[in-house]
Amino acid sequence: MSSVSLLSVESLSVSLGERSYPIHVGAGVLASREHLLPYLAGRQVMIVTNEAIAPHYLAALKQTLAGADLEIREVILPDGEATKTLASVERIWDALLAAGFNRHCTLIALGGGVIGDMAGYAAASYQRGVAFIQIPTTLLAQVDSSVGGKTGVNHPRGKNMIGAFWQPRAVIVDIDTLRTLPARELSAGLAEVIKYGLIWDISFLEWLEENLAALRALDESAIRHAIRRSCEIKAEVVAEDETEQGVRALLNLGHTFGHAIEAHQGYGNWLHGEAVGAGMMMATRLSFDRGWLSEADVERVAAILIAADLPVTAPANMQAEDFLSRMRLDKKNLDSRLRLILLEALGRACIRDDTEAEQLHRLLERFPRG
Amino acid sequence: MSSVSLLSVESLSVSLGERSYPIHVGAGVLASREHLLPYLAGRQVMIVTNEAIAPHYLAALKQTLAGADLEIREVILPDGEATKTLASVERIWDALLAAGFNRHCTLIALGGGVIGDMAGYAAASYQRGVAFIQIPTTLLAQVDSSVGGKTGVNHPRGKNMIGAFWQPRAVIVDIDTLRTLPARELSAGLAEVIKYGLIWDISFLEWLEENLAALRALDESAIRHAIRRSCEIKAEVVAEDETEQGVRALLNLGHTFGHAIEAHQGYGNWLHGEAVGAGMMMATRLSFDRGWLSEADVERVAAILIAADLPVTAPANMQAEDFLSRMRLDKKNLDSRLRLILLEALGRACIRDDTEAEQLHRLLERFPRG
Repeated sequence: MSSVSLLSVESLSVSLGERSYPIHVGAGVLASREHLLPYLAGRQVMIVTNEAIAPHYLAALKQTLAGADLEIREVILPDGEATKTLASVERIWDALLAAGFNRHCTLIALGGGVIGDMAGYAAASYQRGVAFIQIPTTLLAQVDSSVGGKTGVNHPRGKNMIGAFWQPRAVIVDIDTLRTLPARELSAGLAEVIKYGLIWDISFLEWLEENLAALRALDESAIRHAIRRSCEIKAEVVAEDETEQGVRALLNLGHTFGHAIEAHQGYGNWLHGEAVGAGMMMATRLSFDRGWLSEADVERVAAILIAADLPVTAPANMQAEDFLSRMRLDKKNLDSRLRLILLEALGRACIRDDTEAEQLHRLLERFPRG
Repeated sequence: MSSVSLLSVESLSVSLGERSYPIHVGAGVLASREHLLPYLAGRQVMIVTNEAIAPHYLAALKQTLAGADLEIREVILPDGEATKTLASVERIWDALLAAGFNRHCTLIALGGGVIGDMAGYAAASYQRGVAFIQIPTTLLAQVDSSVGGKTGVNHPRGKNMIGAFWQPRAVIVDIDTLRTLPARELSAGLAEVIKYGLIWDISFLEWLEENLAALRALDESAIRHAIRRSCEIKAEVVAEDETEQGVRALLNLGHTFGHAIEAHQGYGNWLHGEAVGAGMMMATRLSFDRGWLSEADVERVAAILIAADLPVTAPANMQAEDFLSRMRLDKKNLDSRLRLILLEALGRACIRDDTEAEQLHRLLERFPRG
């Protein structure tokens, strides 16, 4: 156990009354029994992971669980957003039932956002709800999708259309797992990190502008700060509005545009974070058109996205109508009014449903294509 | 509107804080706009019903909704417990998405327990949760399944294995709908009514003993009293323990045995209430074996079940091992201990996990087969 005592783990809390839970952030925390075992609901443990992650971290996780008198099973799904379907969730349910697991079992999601969303939804609906733990292994999952209880799968007609709000019992962020993450996925995660600066915290945005190179080089201290600050903001927003009746919607900056891009291009061809990057650029440009941002602000947003190696143009093959038809079905749109997250200033977002159709159409027509 | 003022509607409340909701009970309440319209979340309404119920009540429900500037769609599923599958729920989701319904839509379940369970689960998981209203049309749904927020579907490996706790916004019980209910289903509903007397209220049990003939003849005053008292008990138990951590389990008297019967016989061949009837007889006999009930108590339970035209024997083709293998997977069983609801006395149930395997086995071997 002496190795554990050398760990430097920072713990935040998501405050949701009886459903409050910790986020443990540290290099090597995956090996720490004390940060994992207390959150198991019973003896039955189902690890849900995928073919890309299992070779790197499944054995390590099982090692951490070993010797605790647990019944451990695993489901290894294919990799990628295209697998984020009800059929994959059914595979998890089938495995749980084949193992005879009862409602006191625990699911552990070991992987990126897709694994976390599917394992979380599987947990939410298995025997009307069982415990689950998030061990996110991508930057995007570590700073965004593993925190806050949004779970679900895609439907051919739209992203995340089937799902539940179901909070994990703990989120365990081992930043060492980023060392096996492809650079493209690291950039995709940085899109959500940048988002927190844009919507909530101008000084964090400034810090990011100065530290993007360090983040892309996986400097441990920089990565740790970026994850902690992102999780703090997410936890604060979620504690205030768990089921997205109000302020939580701010976290969707760029997402309505981004979801349209993902759906049009086919899930997985653009990574979620890439689509959000382009989408944030579109929201930024629309905020400029509304008169709230300066040309310098727009340039600043473009510069930080480019520094993170994220797209700042829309797909070449996507017409204005391709956006509009998909944006109308987006969950965030109340009845027929188009509700968008925009920027009143850098570091301060707002929810607006008063964008004129003509103004939006002009943006969609003129926005640069890549 | 003068016809509405002639209605005699009694309203109970299920107390769950922000998620509290009313149960409106009355003859003809299906036609009452004031008992339905206030519970819609927005303009989009999806009615979920089945082929047996639609010819009787769909037009009446649409008439009640007419003129309120709503966008009304419907999904008409096949009838029967065999349809209580994820595939049926997917049909509901597909219809919602095809209609472009957003997260401010409302699902209305018009039908028996199967429709209510499926529509409720569809609502729980559509866009991470939308509103739904229960309009139960069978006695079983009116006194039990429509109240309390248990929703879900069956899996080939077990009943109700996939689902959610998701409370309706209102339960609307029109007792006139019982006039089209087959006698066999009326009896199945009486099993749950008798259950409330057995687990909770000896004086209600005595009232039932005196009024079973009137109930089977659909005497309005008797039916109204039985439904109201059943819903009162259910609401009291659910308010105390929404997610079945403790006392709510008492509502499962006879259900662990009953689920084994349903699963072994194939869902729908034995009605749920019939299997619960036989299961309550088994739990009663086991309570006698434990020394808590007298032979006279056992005879009394048998007599009231027989008076309700419910089975008091197990299926002829079911061996002790057929029960045991299915009971172990039952949701109500914590790890490997078999947890059963038994009767300390008539009118008072208890949760016990200390039944000796040998005693249970002896019961399962010797219990009469039909």
